[in-house]
Amino acid sequence: MSLHLADLPTPALLLERGRLLTNLEAMRARISARGVALRPHLKTAKSAKVAELATEGASGGITVSTLREAEYFFDHGFRDITYAVGIVPARLGRVAALQDKGARVQILTDNLTAAGEIAQYAQAHDASFRVLVEIDTGDRRAGLLPDSPDLLDIAGALHAAPGVELLGVLTHAGQSYDCGSIAEVRAVAELERDGVVAAARRLRDADLPCPVVSAGSTPTAVHADDLTGVTEMRPGCYMFFDLDQLVLGSCARDDLALSVLTTVIGHNRHAGHLLLDAGALALSKDVSATRWRPEVGYGEVCDPASLTPYPGLFVGSVNQEHGVVPVTDAEAFARLPVGSQVRVLPNHACMTAAAYERYLVVEDGAVIDDWDRVNGW
Amino acid sequence: MSLHLADLPTPALLLERGRLLTNLEAMRARISARGVALRPHLKTAKSAKVAELATEGASGGITVSTLREAEYFFDHGFRDITYAVGIVPARLGRVAALQDKGARVQILTDNLTAAGEIAQYAQAHDASFRVLVEIDTGDRRAGLLPDSPDLLDIAGALHAAPGVELLGVLTHAGQSYDCGSIAEVRAVAELERDGVVAAARRLRDADLPCPVVSAGSTPTAVHADDLTGVTEMRPGCYMFFDLDQLVLGSCARDDLALSVLTTVIGHNRHAGHLLLDAGALALSKDVSATRWRPEVGYGEVCDPASLTPYPGLFVGSVNQEHGVVPVTDAEAFARLPVGSQVRVLPNHACMTAAAYERYLVVEDGAVIDDWDRVNGW
Repeated sequence: MSLHLADLPTPALLLERGRLLTNLEAMRARISARGVALRPHLKTAKSAKVAELATEGASGGITVSTLREAEYFFDHGFRDITYAVGIVPARLGRVAALQDKGARVQILTDNLTAAGEIAQYAQAHDASFRVLVEIDTGDRRAGLLPDSPDLLDIAGALHAAPGVELLGVLTHAGQSYDCGSIAEVRAVAELERDGVVAAARRLRDADLPCPVVSAGSTPTAVHADDLTGVTEMRPGCYMFFDLDQLVLGSCARDDLALSVLTTVIGHNRHAGHLLLDAGALALSKDVSATRWRPEVGYGEVCDPASLTPYPGLFVGSVNQEHGVVPVTDAEAFARLPVGSQVRVLPNHACMTAAAYERYLVVEDGAVIDDWDRVNGW
Repeated sequence: MSLHLADLPTPALLLERGRLLTNLEAMRARISARGVALRPHLKTAKSAKVAELATEGASGGITVSTLREAEYFFDHGFRDITYAVGIVPARLGRVAALQDKGARVQILTDNLTAAGEIAQYAQAHDASFRVLVEIDTGDRRAGLLPDSPDLLDIAGALHAAPGVELLGVLTHAGQSYDCGSIAEVRAVAELERDGVVAAARRLRDADLPCPVVSAGSTPTAVHADDLTGVTEMRPGCYMFFDLDQLVLGSCARDDLALSVLTTVIGHNRHAGHLLLDAGALALSKDVSATRWRPEVGYGEVCDPASLTPYPGLFVGSVNQEHGVVPVTDAEAFARLPVGSQVRVLPNHACMTAAAYERYLVVEDGAVIDDWDRVNGW
């Protein structure tokens, strides 16, 4: 397979293979240098091909955000899967079914009632579950605070239940996405490590097992200096990076592996803008990078061959199938006639990629492969 | 097929059949009372089953926003399709292929170069195209201003070209979505009518054909008093409505036909919120209704059976697979335990529905059918 970009229908999701490989290798080297396992989060990529590369073809341990991802990756040879969203009882049957086929799934809770229901289900169905307790190290989304009195109750209940294996603790310092500097990200990484290690220590001090101490977001995985006490990291977005990660300082511009190929479908000279066929569905309505670079809007418009930004060209607004690119000089109309292509760097890879069924994989300016994705639930 | 909501995996996209039928009938009655054809825009529903109901089972004329929609609806028996996004030359082959199979496709341009390329393609490939000229009646997205000197040049070039049929003019008053009152929407509807009719008059005054004068957004279709001179209206969102249309005054609360069924997956008592398994992907990041009701956030949380809002419960923030619902009283934790279901009314039906492969069709509180959607491009 080798296709020219000019021959592709648009909008299309392009993935630069060279940049992907560089990003994967950099994270692998960084995490392994600290003696910690990398359990890549596949919520961004949702692709078996990417997962194989991210785990060095070893079908190693992975992280997922939906049970559909878990089932898809299992079907593609991945056995060791952490489902990193709090479990609800109604999903235990689906987890057990996957395990009956040979998967080893880690599930998550921070709730005493749910822990009891996991135990009940295991007993009633002769099933077994491997469970992590979720810890809140400052994200204030899910999880128990490291010093929560509930921690030992929940861990104790899980450990005491036949068919339930208490594996340890897991956290995600999502507040790293709100940082304004690398120094702040480093401080969050230290809070993440400190909190989850403190929770692990409480379990061990109470004679409860805690082999797994799991942490990680892309910013903290990129910038953490010290991972002492952490056993695995679970970044996901680092595979592709995006404008949000760029403004956060997680990557360099040349690491941005994901872009949307789009066609100029109109010139509105009286309003002063170009129109693209990449709108709210093709780019998503995520504007996370605008916190630090308000001009970015819904994405940065680039030369399709070099992926170099056109100075001052951004997707300023979107409708369902229209992206509006304000232009300040008439020269832009001449340079980008109706029918010409550009590439747009998205704010948030996880959100943009979810609109597409596949990646068109680019090397040296040509599409060399086509990798599927698993969307939905 | 009859399933209880409680047995459904979540997140799931629910469509209330009764409300859908009411909305379809109300729009049909309103538009036909004004002697105008209804050419429903299927960009919101993207579903053949909905299209059949919206066209009274007559496989009548429809509007689409992507060529994939055009192909899908053609495969489901729809022949008369307006592709209401400016055409680019690279897409003419796909349009011609559809016409060769028996479709009658209307395409759109506002660009003299593109008009020339349409003519060239028709001649070179012995193809024929039916073309509308897009008019900007205040939306300032695409289209020529009604008094633009280019209008007669483009229309004239199209009319003169062998194989090209100049059909008329088309506009979309998208600025109706920014209105703050029904009086403002009515004023926009009048601008829309006035502008597109003025453009049609210019064509006719120049002895150019203009059988089609096409207009319409959901707000203007709902509130326009006078459609004199307009031949067809193309609303789309009215089939389902959403919180944005509700705050705009396009519908009543009982008209909201679309919701996301979601499960409470966590209680964060120290941060004071519930967690849902409907996050940024399941709801989209659209927050359009917050312009007028800031408290709405990413959606309004409702009782799953009655679809009645729980007072004060909204999705305040989202991550990829987490929706965060701030709660102010401990009672909410007791009423909505982990594992319980709620339904979320979305801001923008077009954006939310696009994350799903199908609608689960609800009648009297049970799922009675399963309708597919066509996503992507």
